[in-house]
Amino acid sequence: MAHDAIRELVERVTYAPGYTKAVGTRVESAEAGYVVMSLAKTDNLLQANGFFHGGVIAGLADHAAGGAVTTAMPPGRFAVTVNLQISFLAPAKGGSLIARARALQVGSTIGVARVDVVSVADGAETPCAIATVTLRGVAFPAR
Amino acid sequence: MAHDAIRELVERVTYAPGYTKAVGTRVESAEAGYVVMSLAKTDNLLQANGFFHGGVIAGLADHAAGGAVTTAMPPGRFAVTVNLQISFLAPAKGGSLIARARALQVGSTIGVARVDVVSVADGAETPCAIATVTLRGVAFPAR
Amino acid sequence: MAHDAIRELVERVTYAPGYTKAVGTRVESAEAGYVVMSLAKTDNLLQANGFFHGGVIAGLADHAAGGAVTTAMPPGRFAVTVNLQISFLAPAKGGSLIARARALQVGSTIGVARVDVVSVADGAETPCAIATVTLRGVAFPAR
Amino acid sequence: MAHDAIRELVERVTYAPGYTKAVGTRVESAEAGYVVMSLAKTDNLLQANGFFHGGVIAGLADHAAGGAVTTAMPPGRFAVTVNLQISFLAPAKGGSLIARARALQVGSTIGVARVDVVSVADGAETPCAIATVTLRGVAFPAR
Repeated sequence: MAHDAIRELVERVTYAPGYTKAVGTRVESAEAGYVVMSLAKTDNLLQANGFFHGGVIAGLADHAAGGAVTTAMPPGRFAVTVNLQISFLAPAKGGSLIARARALQVGSTIGVARVDVVSVADGAETPCAIATVTLRGVAFPAR
Repeated sequence: MAHDAIRELVERVTYAPGYTKAVGTRVESAEAGYVVMSLAKTDNLLQANGFFHGGVIAGLADHAAGGAVTTAMPPGRFAVTVNLQISFLAPAKGGSLIARARALQVGSTIGVARVDVVSVADGAETPCAIATVTLRGVAFPAR
Repeated sequence: MAHDAIRELVERVTYAPGYTKAVGTRVESAEAGYVVMSLAKTDNLLQANGFFHGGVIAGLADHAAGGAVTTAMPPGRFAVTVNLQISFLAPAKGGSLIARARALQVGSTIGVARVDVVSVADGAETPCAIATVTLRGVAFPAR
Repeated sequence: MAHDAIRELVERVTYAPGYTKAVGTRVESAEAGYVVMSLAKTDNLLQANGFFHGGVIAGLADHAAGGAVTTAMPPGRFAVTVNLQISFLAPAKGGSLIARARALQVGSTIGVARVDVVSVADGAETPCAIATVTLRGVAFPAR
């Protein structure tokens, strides 16, 4: 796909009505196999201590990984998550999250992406989680 | 802790302002080391195909695991997630999710919980995900 | 496959020259989607403290999961591991390990198995690890 | 610890009688928080197709992660694995494996390491697996 088509695809899925739009997920950049997304802090995304909830971080990582692998697959294929593994390195105390997802391997049926998630406070990034996501390709728009 | 105190603790954390309350997480039951939570379908929890978003399922599993391990720890300790691993077995097509989390091992610093998540449609349960969550104990209410 | 054919397949793969035979893996039982394997303690399988090495436990879980998913797939398909996640619950202090692997979901391309590993001492079982393994089907004998 | 002391520690644990010595694990380099290990192909480390067995790759990743986190902990502490997650990217067809483990976060009780494993053939490296390992610190030599 052309770069514009890739970004358009990722934005269309991200901004469609549903969870990713509701929480305010933003597409920062998108190219084949590499997607960056962000999420700004709002009261409904936090846990009791005022930091981003782990489920919100996991959801952002999952969605970014889906974008990275889908854009590395042949046109007409869509990647759905089979397995998500995430390790939390530090509390996400910042005002926003940035998730950078890269497709490490994309085959005929399976793709694997690694995602680095940072918390941003006063312009400084602090790593807060790393994820490895395994996805499988299905016929678009099966998801 | 007495059973009532355990349930009160889990409900207090779950219904406090923030993500778990915002999405509508319900505490179905809570005893030391075993917690059941549910989540009803709403438009903001879905992905493009109308099923529960993987991040929402992961968040429910994470929160239920936290309850199962926290309630198995000594009073005054609170379990925060170190690592979350979730495998998606089938699309969550139902009208609600139920997550059953059981603490498998709880030590002085670490606890591990296994979570089974089912999708409920017309009263019938379909397994949609299984998760293994590793948590560490911190001084309450550090989270 | 008939039950005898299933067991014969699992034994053939397990006892073929290579790692599983070298370490002494035993097939205890095998049916479609459920396989039990064991491993007796030998000096070359231990870590410095005299317990089974985590890599050995992971290898047994991986192999048992492969058996459980392969036997649940159509004849001619073979399951190879895509992702292995294992949590260690207690030191494997016993004289042998038993791994019980069950296929939770097997689709056209992907299968997921859950594996419970126990350490056996004086006839008593102690849970030492749980694993979730994601595999994909390939044309036999691609592995 | 001084660099020499770090390497000496990692070599002592790796070359002690047991699994890591038996399979032929080599310490290529070791500094605080970063360890590189290798493993040469032998018949007893393979699966039926002649490639390194997944359990062997997992064991190497686990051991390298233990070295990376242990060397980043205060003297007298030893890191034991709590959770191992590994994704297999390609068959390990080469004549040797190299695992590079880096500690991403090391706290008072928990450490997390990321491990990249490559297969080496004719001097060329091919990524074959990535792992994320969670460990906890215990009093040396508790392991």
